[in-house]
Amino acid sequence: MKDFSFYAPTEVVFGKESEEQVARLVKKYGGSRVLVHYGGQSAKRSGLLDKICGLLDEGGVEYALLGGVVPNPRLSKVHEGIALCREKKIDFILAIGGGSVIDSSKAIAYGVPYEGEVWDFYAGKSQPKTCLPVASVLTIPAAGSEMSEASVITDDVHGEVWMKLGYSNNISRPKFAIMNPCRTFTLPPYQTAAGVTDIMLHTMERYFNPDCDMTLTDAVAEALMRTMKDCVFEVLKNPEDYRNRAQIMWAGSLAHNDVTGNRVNGDWATHQIEHELSAMFDVTHGAGLAVIWPSWARYVMKANVSRFVRFAVNVTGVENDYTDPEGTALRGIAAMERFYHAIGMPNSIHELIGREVTDEEIKEMARKCTRNYTITQGKFKVLRAEDIEEIYRMAR
Amino acid sequence: MKDFSFYAPTEVVFGKESEEQVARLVKKYGGSRVLVHYGGQSAKRSGLLDKICGLLDEGGVEYALLGGVVPNPRLSKVHEGIALCREKKIDFILAIGGGSVIDSSKAIAYGVPYEGEVWDFYAGKSQPKTCLPVASVLTIPAAGSEMSEASVITDDVHGEVWMKLGYSNNISRPKFAIMNPCRTFTLPPYQTAAGVTDIMLHTMERYFNPDCDMTLTDAVAEALMRTMKDCVFEVLKNPEDYRNRAQIMWAGSLAHNDVTGNRVNGDWATHQIEHELSAMFDVTHGAGLAVIWPSWARYVMKANVSRFVRFAVNVTGVENDYTDPEGTALRGIAAMERFYHAIGMPNSIHELIGREVTDEEIKEMARKCTRNYTITQGKFKVLRAEDIEEIYRMAR
Repeated sequence: MKDFSFYAPTEVVFGKESEEQVARLVKKYGGSRVLVHYGGQSAKRSGLLDKICGLLDEGGVEYALLGGVVPNPRLSKVHEGIALCREKKIDFILAIGGGSVIDSSKAIAYGVPYEGEVWDFYAGKSQPKTCLPVASVLTIPAAGSEMSEASVITDDVHGEVWMKLGYSNNISRPKFAIMNPCRTFTLPPYQTAAGVTDIMLHTMERYFNPDCDMTLTDAVAEALMRTMKDCVFEVLKNPEDYRNRAQIMWAGSLAHNDVTGNRVNGDWATHQIEHELSAMFDVTHGAGLAVIWPSWARYVMKANVSRFVRFAVNVTGVENDYTDPEGTALRGIAAMERFYHAIGMPNSIHELIGREVTDEEIKEMARKCTRNYTITQGKFKVLRAEDIEEIYRMAR
Repeated sequence: MKDFSFYAPTEVVFGKESEEQVARLVKKYGGSRVLVHYGGQSAKRSGLLDKICGLLDEGGVEYALLGGVVPNPRLSKVHEGIALCREKKIDFILAIGGGSVIDSSKAIAYGVPYEGEVWDFYAGKSQPKTCLPVASVLTIPAAGSEMSEASVITDDVHGEVWMKLGYSNNISRPKFAIMNPCRTFTLPPYQTAAGVTDIMLHTMERYFNPDCDMTLTDAVAEALMRTMKDCVFEVLKNPEDYRNRAQIMWAGSLAHNDVTGNRVNGDWATHQIEHELSAMFDVTHGAGLAVIWPSWARYVMKANVSRFVRFAVNVTGVENDYTDPEGTALRGIAAMERFYHAIGMPNSIHELIGREVTDEEIKEMARKCTRNYTITQGKFKVLRAEDIEEIYRMAR
């Protein structure tokens, strides 16, 4: 069994009135001049932004505002945030939104005290020594960034083609996360389903690891995945179902705070292969994952058929045909594909981007995914560029 | 659904070589003059104490030693620790052992900077403003104190009868926990089984809550309880089974760091009723829990039969007789009783203490359990002194 570490220091305040505590929490964790960082219009339209600003005012906390973070958040916006933080002498970053805003906040937090180019960290050229404290008022359960050490940024500044790269460091784990499930009632069905897909994939990436020998963690992971499948149908029927919205919101954190498995030992090939789709076509990450996972699964299945059998039986509810493990495994993968379809997720790249992906685009994505053929992806089965191309073709 | 908070900041370092990091971790969390706090001879005999001291020496960390913590740790020892810490200007407490040593360390940590009597906190008369940092090298998986905010101390100083009381405060959450499953290979079968009983009960106390409306948390809790039942038989057969020792060790933390449910919403009557048994007869906490829980369960079952049916089916594997929910529930309780028997735990107070408990003793325990008839216990069903007496009688 692999050694592991577990570190999830984020203080979670969960419930209908949780936002009321924002000023107290910011001050508790040392903030006095806050960057309130948000995405598009929804934080304004919903009144959440005004509410948070009002609470900070009441609490005597100064702040500056920066909106406009987009899905697949951009390095150019991170640069803008770093400049603003320096100008305003910001000492705390409060993200209002989902993974994109929190990830962007983490990048700004690394960048402010760093003299060089913050992209260095994502490109693997340097390591940050320190960063500003980050926290969030979560509005989109999906990325799990509210408790994680991870962030993913798309470089729209350097070079002709955009690169989407992740960087993980415990110093960026958010100080607190305010989670009010009511704030997710207005999430459209597509975003809701994509979020649950992302949550389940964070668990699946850990579940399909090369060791597969921690039955406790497996059982916890299966419990989360099974429950999410039920919850998502309930909230798609009734968007204001508090109990199920709450469970999805909490699952988003558990799926990425390492309770369902150690991130470092996970596979992550599906995520990496999807990152190239998002970078090239700017699609919703969760929807991209729904497209890639079944092809990844069929391609790698023989590396450990019994793992896929366990997944099929314990997560998708497929009957175990003991005479035909591969058949059972394949029926589990097909069941996931039907689940994605049933919640409104695409089943192919064509469905995802609205046209056929070309061979050149596939080759280009595989090239970038392997950093010009210099690295492999995945641990459950190690994948080279030609394997990744084949997975894109199977998913096309 | 109840609001909740989640805060589990302890850095866990888990694995065969984890102790090697002790000096680095102590320094990371601000320790320079450490109290190395331990229990009986096993830490010495196993060589662990010498190893830790050697590593602290190598790392340039000063320390003082204090051994002799006993199960159901005593206030008199806490006083001794406080005096030693003040004398030696200790700034960090490192517990080497299980729940008793960690709980004692937390009490010392509260007491050092406090001018009054530390028992005030446990007696509910005062709240600490600060405490010394605490961390542990865990050797007994059971109490979950290595990640929790809770500690339980027995007052052997004031008054004629000993009082065993718990106190919980987030400021005492340990900074780090070093967990090497190999250190648990030498745990005797009885302590191993009592530990697993305690771990499962920490989850059961949360599972039998008055709301029962978070299916995600329920599923995670059931996963943990089912897995523990398998793991304990494996390590009783083969004490050096690393994988299953590791799973028990990690489950001990998960069962009490609120992943399996929010402590505040839990029932905790079984724990409180057992505390009086431990205080009066100085028995092993886990063994006491095994004796009390089935009687508690039968006594309170009708408060929510369907909850007990779910437990019976999903945890004990009893078949659901839909025509007879109470029968299903009772068969689940009986199955737990057989499980306790199978792992060597007692099934009655008689078996636990080696003689019949008297009516006077039962009345005395119920009196203390309700603080002289001034408070109730439990949330799943609220229990008064006469209810608690009846549970003791059912368990006698």
